[in-house]
Amino acid sequence: MSAKIPENFMDLFQKKAFGSLSTLMADGSPQTNPVWIDYDNGELWVNTAVGRLKDRNMKRDPRVSVAVIDPDNPYRFVEIRGKVREVTQDGATQHIDKMAKKYLGKDKYPFAQPGEQRVLFKIKPEHVHTMG
Amino acid sequence: MSAKIPENFMDLFQKKAFGSLSTLMADGSPQTNPVWIDYDNGELWVNTAVGRLKDRNMKRDPRVSVAVIDPDNPYRFVEIRGKVREVTQDGATQHIDKMAKKYLGKDKYPFAQPGEQRVLFKIKPEHVHTMG
Repeated sequence: MSAKIPENFMDLFQKKAFGSLSTLMADGSPQTNPVWIDYDNGELWVNTAVGRLKDRNMKRDPRVSVAVIDPDNPYRFVEIRGKVREVTQDGATQHIDKMAKKYLGKDKYPFAQPGEQRVLFKIKPEHVHTMG
Repeated sequence: MSAKIPENFMDLFQKKAFGSLSTLMADGSPQTNPVWIDYDNGELWVNTAVGRLKDRNMKRDPRVSVAVIDPDNPYRFVEIRGKVREVTQDGATQHIDKMAKKYLGKDKYPFAQPGEQRVLFKIKPEHVHTMG
């Protein structure tokens, strides 16, 4: 199963719009976290640090949902349900720098902790709902 | 189990901040929706229309999570995991008008559909995480 984000909502991924990422806890309950969000070739990319709650949750259960609200109009948004298709540390440090550029205007991600390892989750949309 | 939202984050419920509400689909996967959010006596109140996806989801499984981002600073937010404690239609129409006042500055909710029945979900926080 696979779904496409409509062209006329792609601007949300150019803007500094946050995603609200929901993952599943071990007991199956949902957990929601604001995240920087990237779009690449039909998939959503989320970058986190190894060991964080959403890292552990997505490695256990690949089912996620992401809502992205237009920062210029909160009644315009896209909601995506899908599954993590790939988890990789390859390129994850370069990718968080790309996100720092997008969201902070900085060439280098400034919040790295000592010893932190970045990890990239590539999410395949299965259901897409838009409003506005 | 019960948890308290810290006093210094209560301003988020005065502002026109949206909540990102995550509910569980029948197959256990998460679904996320931007919502108007109210706070009352330690609980979160979410108002929707009978028959909508989140209405059906929360009636089936009371486990939810809500993230509220400060509209003035996206790096400041509160995340709440908890359970629906009460579902009621009593007072739900008055309550959506209260939300219309808060978010739209209107005395009456302007988006009601013919025959729409409002329903109010009262959510008891079990885990609260803040950032910023």
